[in-house]
Amino acid sequence: MKYIPKNIQRAIEEFSKLPGVGPKTAERLVFYLLKKPSQDIQKLGQAINELKEGLVYCEICKNLSSEIRCDICNNEARSEEEVCVVEDALDLMALEKTGAFKGRYHVLHGIISPVDGVGPDELTIHDLVLRAKNGTLKEMIFALNPSMEGEATAAYIMRQIEPYDIKVTRIARGIPMGGHVEYADSQTLKRAMEGRMSY
Amino acid sequence: MKYIPKNIQRAIEEFSKLPGVGPKTAERLVFYLLKKPSQDIQKLGQAINELKEGLVYCEICKNLSSEIRCDICNNEARSEEEVCVVEDALDLMALEKTGAFKGRYHVLHGIISPVDGVGPDELTIHDLVLRAKNGTLKEMIFALNPSMEGEATAAYIMRQIEPYDIKVTRIARGIPMGGHVEYADSQTLKRAMEGRMSY
Repeated sequence: MKYIPKNIQRAIEEFSKLPGVGPKTAERLVFYLLKKPSQDIQKLGQAINELKEGLVYCEICKNLSSEIRCDICNNEARSEEEVCVVEDALDLMALEKTGAFKGRYHVLHGIISPVDGVGPDELTIHDLVLRAKNGTLKEMIFALNPSMEGEATAAYIMRQIEPYDIKVTRIARGIPMGGHVEYADSQTLKRAMEGRMSY
Repeated sequence: MKYIPKNIQRAIEEFSKLPGVGPKTAERLVFYLLKKPSQDIQKLGQAINELKEGLVYCEICKNLSSEIRCDICNNEARSEEEVCVVEDALDLMALEKTGAFKGRYHVLHGIISPVDGVGPDELTIHDLVLRAKNGTLKEMIFALNPSMEGEATAAYIMRQIEPYDIKVTRIARGIPMGGHVEYADSQTLKRAMEGRMSY
């Protein structure tokens, strides 16, 4: 590709490293940017360069935050008695958008997965157990992805918090809204049946 | 979204502006970056910031170049007698990857489109006509997208170069490789029939 200026090649290369962005998409993105005014391009570049600036993990919930304590943990209106355990910040964001949960969170930053070499010590489980030990916590809600690893992680944490009097729940599994019973896989249907609720 | 640190929000916003990147994808990209080492993130940011640095339009073919004259126009091995006319640099790149063309290019940077307010003067047509006038050019090959605008642009240019003795061709239209005759639309089939070649 010697007929393409080096800066363009380099940008295409860097974009190609992003997940879901192949070389063709990277080309398209770069040439889209090339048509934009320089200041628009710089805005994107700057946002990326400054992405991690001043970011820390909240001392309580371990979510990414610009303060030592994040906005949710700082919010007195949110119940300290319920903690929702999520795998990562994207899950937290998805739950927050629903507005259905008014408690606090705990971000594990991963899931126990021996295959990938991730054990309990690589996650923030120890901090979660400390929160359980503290006394204010009454319900721990697991919002982990339904998978072997999710189950194993929940089971591990449950064993750790057994000494404390905490109710443990998990978000419901069943047929998604807009889904069809006839097309649902049998594992999902089984869970939906098990989790049936009275009208 | 006040529970998300400002830098993260800003990066999501900037990514969302890219074509084909919705808010969900932007979130995914940003959180992917957040897991990367800072220097990897900076590499992307820098590549974007420096994207346009030192870029000029080649004085001959008007392609983006880091020199006054681009590598292709500087290449003595490439025939000056054949010029392939393309809409933009992406089309040039696609053609170069085939290795099927050993002549020079001319990048129009758009197509005549009255609906979008793009007339001949917004494009590099004048420079192309000057190249035609120069005398070395023997064949002009149009590699424009098959559309009303592509046809109109080719027709306009052809009228301009009529005084000069230049053969005008266009790349073939027909059934794409791997395509099926039965699924081809009738316009494509019609063009394929008209453009039939002897074995």
